[in-house]
Amino acid sequence: MLMELVGKNRSYRRFYQEEPVEGATLRELVNLARLSASAANLQPLKYILSCREESNSKIFSTLKWAAYLKDWEGPREGERPPAYIVMLGDTAIGGFQQVDAGIACQSILLGAAEIGLGGCIIASVNREQLRKSLDIPGQYEILYVIALGKPLETVVIETAKDDIRYWRDEKGVHHVPKRRLEEIIIQMA
Amino acid sequence: MLMELVGKNRSYRRFYQEEPVEGATLRELVNLARLSASAANLQPLKYILSCREESNSKIFSTLKWAAYLKDWEGPREGERPPAYIVMLGDTAIGGFQQVDAGIACQSILLGAAEIGLGGCIIASVNREQLRKSLDIPGQYEILYVIALGKPLETVVIETAKDDIRYWRDEKGVHHVPKRRLEEIIIQMA
Repeated sequence: MLMELVGKNRSYRRFYQEEPVEGATLRELVNLARLSASAANLQPLKYILSCREESNSKIFSTLKWAAYLKDWEGPREGERPPAYIVMLGDTAIGGFQQVDAGIACQSILLGAAEIGLGGCIIASVNREQLRKSLDIPGQYEILYVIALGKPLETVVIETAKDDIRYWRDEKGVHHVPKRRLEEIIIQMA
Repeated sequence: MLMELVGKNRSYRRFYQEEPVEGATLRELVNLARLSASAANLQPLKYILSCREESNSKIFSTLKWAAYLKDWEGPREGERPPAYIVMLGDTAIGGFQQVDAGIACQSILLGAAEIGLGGCIIASVNREQLRKSLDIPGQYEILYVIALGKPLETVVIETAKDDIRYWRDEKGVHHVPKRRLEEIIIQMA
């Protein structure tokens, strides 16, 4: 069952932009992150939620999409994310923000998969611009932006040979090469 | 449903040591991590699995437990983890190992919760000793050790006031104060 969710939980970069994601849904997803593990239980992660056109547009303009798809600049109007969760690290708390961020992102995105949504963790963010346009206090480091919505694309997993770069075929299907289990388990102690 | 798993997925530090976790189960848990997101899809994480007494004992001796519980040195014989997943970062690949580790840990531990197991992500590891005793090549950085087994303790979440340090009451129940949702969502943009 979790395997089914993990399977569905791919990185989606094209969405039904007109299908809204409510603020209450975003709150529920953050609540999953809230109740997840945090190193030394410090809980340094803070969040900004966005599901309105104006703030979505501000956030979108700070993002770079899919580094391996050189010919694609990101989702066109109509296929953009209807919602975002901006994940921040509270420097007044400190903690171990990157591992905490990974744990929280996974809770959020598995929760999204369960209700038919999908998303993408975006690290390539113009942080200075985002800080200005959302008026984010200097106390908070901008860690990641999670784009969310109802996925408009098909993503398939395949077995990696040499190259792990994802690619898109002529039908627009997004292929993600994953290393084999035998490659990643190096020892049975 | 995922909320139920997230709720069950607490950090457990005492286990039914005599109830084994099979190697095949550990492989399935790592497979959940394998199919999860990885920054730039680089997949730098590698794994060592342990579910035998000899290797478990070697790993156990390198761990420090529960920094906030000053009077407790870790699980006593009979309550120790029957299995471990050692998570490594392959320096030949690079990537973004901390956020990837968080994502992978959460997949593994939610998968464990689903089958009645529990665990704890341990960062306080004598890495030099562990490298020697398991003969881990220098190419791999030791990121975390995940202890796994059938939980022998009760862990409850409570609302954090000022102090986020977990504590154990006189009945041995482990209390984890979590920040309120209102505290961690700083803006609805």
